[in-house]
Amino acid sequence: MTRLELIGVEGLPEVRPGDDLGELISSRATLETGDVLVVAQKVVSKSEGRLVNLRSVRAGEEAVRIASQLVASPDPRMVQVILDESVRVLRSERVLITETRHGFVCANGGVDHSNVPGDDELTLLPEDPDASANRLRGRLRELAGVDVGVIVSDTFGRPWRLGIVNVALGVAGLPALLDLRGSVDDAGKQLQATVLAPADELAAAAGLVMGKTNRAPVVIVRGLGLQGHGTGRDLVRPAAEDLFR
Amino acid sequence: MTRLELIGVEGLPEVRPGDDLGELISSRATLETGDVLVVAQKVVSKSEGRLVNLRSVRAGEEAVRIASQLVASPDPRMVQVILDESVRVLRSERVLITETRHGFVCANGGVDHSNVPGDDELTLLPEDPDASANRLRGRLRELAGVDVGVIVSDTFGRPWRLGIVNVALGVAGLPALLDLRGSVDDAGKQLQATVLAPADELAAAAGLVMGKTNRAPVVIVRGLGLQGHGTGRDLVRPAAEDLFR
Repeated sequence: MTRLELIGVEGLPEVRPGDDLGELISSRATLETGDVLVVAQKVVSKSEGRLVNLRSVRAGEEAVRIASQLVASPDPRMVQVILDESVRVLRSERVLITETRHGFVCANGGVDHSNVPGDDELTLLPEDPDASANRLRGRLRELAGVDVGVIVSDTFGRPWRLGIVNVALGVAGLPALLDLRGSVDDAGKQLQATVLAPADELAAAAGLVMGKTNRAPVVIVRGLGLQGHGTGRDLVRPAAEDLFR
Repeated sequence: MTRLELIGVEGLPEVRPGDDLGELISSRATLETGDVLVVAQKVVSKSEGRLVNLRSVRAGEEAVRIASQLVASPDPRMVQVILDESVRVLRSERVLITETRHGFVCANGGVDHSNVPGDDELTLLPEDPDASANRLRGRLRELAGVDVGVIVSDTFGRPWRLGIVNVALGVAGLPALLDLRGSVDDAGKQLQATVLAPADELAAAAGLVMGKTNRAPVVIVRGLGLQGHGTGRDLVRPAAEDLFR
């Protein structure tokens, strides 16, 4: 019988630039080799100093124009920050959907002001979420002597479906995709188009425990036993193959 | 500390039309009130007789034309079945993405030939996945005296991201969405645009245990304690509000 356990790591303090996330986690949780840690982007970004203060931003013309088209009437300086984080604007009416420098398509380029102290403070996505995941994985090996997988996650909206779900941005120490093409199903037929995205399913599972207002930005997933090494980039559909970009 | 447990229900036989899914599940698992059962669409569809044999299908002109444009070179009769299940074709080059009668946007209108015995047999999505979830929930109350939530799930692809993830099609006995707008985050700020989709996150979590070739089409999620009643329809973004349809 397959059993999987999800354990929320609670009691983390407000994370500040320069904080040792590995230390904050390993001092609050007993990790085991084979665990996958899902860590909310917000705490990773804070520890890496990926913060912008609106008072340091000057909104350009495009940002002012876009801000006026959006339902949430955001501060034009926030729109400027979003544009700075993005390589392409997909939609800028009602809501702002952009493609980030990493290739992620999401609302507001991953820029957010919830769960950040101070009215003028914004968080950006990590510069390189795969590198963030790798660093944390290395640090946990150092501190706790365990070999764990790490996912850096954020909640994204989707076309066609309502509500946001947690997805994987950065991955280390586990496969992001699982290619079953060519393997055989229970009825003995070859599976033709089945590439699973376990890293996204892990992030979503962890999202259940994280909630959005509970301070449980780190969730341990135990019992999966995935072998392999993938990256968050594996999950980005190349623009040329994307029918909806 | 929040703990969640996922338990795969294994050892289910090949399900046939008319089989009592509630009986098949409750005889193999000890359920508890508050559990959420995630059940793969495939076994629900089989028990409901939502099967089509290709030998009974005649492909029309449109189906023949579309089949010739698709990379997988499907049987034109399969394309006919997909068109019959759909109200709209979104993409028909390389892959076939349609909107089903339920409003789901997915590849092949949810029509599938994997994990089905017989070369000519296809499964369709349940006629009304919410009704399917409700019936199973009622039956489990009858048989096991428990009040559980039920999700009928299937694996869907997504724009922008590679790999398929398990999502909720039908929901009974739990909320599909969780509207946190107006509530306050850990930094004391009002959350403005946060509607979570726990039913989809539950389906994704269960997807980790289901795999695709393991015969574990039913997964118990224990420990979440979600209160409320939603439907799979809640998760369908109305076409008028959809920026990518």
